[in-house]
Amino acid sequence: MTDTKPIRRIAIIGTGVIGASWTALFLAKGLQVVATDIAPNAESALRKFVETAWPALKRLGLSPGASQSNLKFTAAIAQAVSGVDLVQENGPERIDFKQKLYGQLDELLPPDVIIASSSSGLKMSDIQLGAPSHPERCVIAHPFNPPHLIPLVEIVGGAKTSKATARRAEEFYTSIGQRTVRVKKEMPGHVANRLQSALMREVYYLVAEDVVSAADVDTALSWGPGLRWGVMGGMMLNHLGGGAGGIEHFLQQFTGPMAAWWKTLGNPVLTPEVQKKLSDSVHAEAGSRTIAELEAERDEMLLGLIELRKHSEAGASHTVAAQ
Amino acid sequence: MTDTKPIRRIAIIGTGVIGASWTALFLAKGLQVVATDIAPNAESALRKFVETAWPALKRLGLSPGASQSNLKFTAAIAQAVSGVDLVQENGPERIDFKQKLYGQLDELLPPDVIIASSSSGLKMSDIQLGAPSHPERCVIAHPFNPPHLIPLVEIVGGAKTSKATARRAEEFYTSIGQRTVRVKKEMPGHVANRLQSALMREVYYLVAEDVVSAADVDTALSWGPGLRWGVMGGMMLNHLGGGAGGIEHFLQQFTGPMAAWWKTLGNPVLTPEVQKKLSDSVHAEAGSRTIAELEAERDEMLLGLIELRKHSEAGASHTVAAQ
Repeated sequence: MTDTKPIRRIAIIGTGVIGASWTALFLAKGLQVVATDIAPNAESALRKFVETAWPALKRLGLSPGASQSNLKFTAAIAQAVSGVDLVQENGPERIDFKQKLYGQLDELLPPDVIIASSSSGLKMSDIQLGAPSHPERCVIAHPFNPPHLIPLVEIVGGAKTSKATARRAEEFYTSIGQRTVRVKKEMPGHVANRLQSALMREVYYLVAEDVVSAADVDTALSWGPGLRWGVMGGMMLNHLGGGAGGIEHFLQQFTGPMAAWWKTLGNPVLTPEVQKKLSDSVHAEAGSRTIAELEAERDEMLLGLIELRKHSEAGASHTVAAQ
Repeated sequence: MTDTKPIRRIAIIGTGVIGASWTALFLAKGLQVVATDIAPNAESALRKFVETAWPALKRLGLSPGASQSNLKFTAAIAQAVSGVDLVQENGPERIDFKQKLYGQLDELLPPDVIIASSSSGLKMSDIQLGAPSHPERCVIAHPFNPPHLIPLVEIVGGAKTSKATARRAEEFYTSIGQRTVRVKKEMPGHVANRLQSALMREVYYLVAEDVVSAADVDTALSWGPGLRWGVMGGMMLNHLGGGAGGIEHFLQQFTGPMAAWWKTLGNPVLTPEVQKKLSDSVHAEAGSRTIAELEAERDEMLLGLIELRKHSEAGASHTVAAQ
């Protein structure tokens, strides 16, 4: 069965922010990576990214055989995809570009090679129209930036994606420690970006309307509900929010107030004036801290939180196993 | 100046879930607490809650003098508020009830005693109409449940709240380690509950529409954007999401896609059928794990995350101080 062919060698198409981060992740998981990009200096930028990301990946745990030297780079796409088991495509978000690329890949690759797209904005049903021979092996595998730290991968099939492809993709990303989600209907923004945009719409509204500063809305989020979402999803939190009565009790109790709040949520228009207001407020929040300093702070805390979560899960499965 | 009177003795009115959690927090911060509630068995339930919460509070760090024995209980409200410096009111969310209660408190208390309401659903401008003598000392200080773990406090004044009251309240909660936010306009749900309801609206929609299961939407949130919101607010994350160009670049790049996603966000109606669907999906997610087990898991991770965040902040201020 071609279905069970192990995935050991990955082609990365496009080595921008997302492609570079995927590259670092796959290398850390002990896989062989061949990357391709037509941008000048793409190779050196990519190798530098991987080197910079390596200490964090080391801290999260390298797999046996993991090495930066397992990275090959070529500007020639045919060479990049030769002999690979999976393609992670991170091209520009233009449907004409992607369809042309998928046509090329469809011709170059044996039918059992999965073509996984990192696209956040396009539908696989549209993209795979470009791959008429074997559209069934094309699937969205959308990461959350940066994929080498944030483990989420959203798996979304198009109209012609086979169940076997979606399942193999799910198994592959899970096998390297990512957390996969099966999105059962094609939706703009899949799931995570929709959740994020729903929240940020209200954040922008409250800052634009002078209800709170950027600093205060960030405190309200990250020291309030964000703390809980950092450890558990909203549905399960609702279940626990209902006490002994669980989610049924929670919904009985809060459906009324929530529906009332929904009616008053904002719908801001991000005009240049509003954008300036948002930016000014963020700059006041950042104060003298540089972007590099803030990034280092964010990534250090993210790493700590991911370690904490994985440790907790390991503890929980240990408990279950011991029973 | 009465303004600078230290706040050492707190009256807790209403010892349900929120009042009990406030009690535990104040005791852990070394304050004297007098609690009152008319429910039968309120005192024993409260003392049990505090005892159960104590190990977590100990782990987060008890203040000098902190002791469960600093808790007094009385069913008589006049006795409860006698000699206190601040009242934390957690009564039922009914405006007639609150106005009557504030009238009583207004008569019982000297004018320099702050009356802080935990109300999430009422406006202080309405509540303080019940306290005609000194409405200026009434303010919303809304916690995020459970306040003994989650440090957020939203400070919202009503039309008649004095600036001094809002500032003293802010200083007080900050002095015991809480993170305060100044909400500059009265809004239904203040800030944090609005953000939460904006996000959950889309969560419910995606589960109700069979786009994802509860388990998968929880994975998408808590292993995706939730991880980031657990360590930093959305505005600052946007700033860092723009690379060297900061938030200006981020907004330029993402305003288009975001506005497009906003148009497609859902607006579910939580009918009994939808509620059943949501509940069923959560029960499938919980599997054989009991609410008590899941709560223990959540609280353990929450404590770990809070420690991590506080440690990181201490490190950051250390760095700043060393410069």
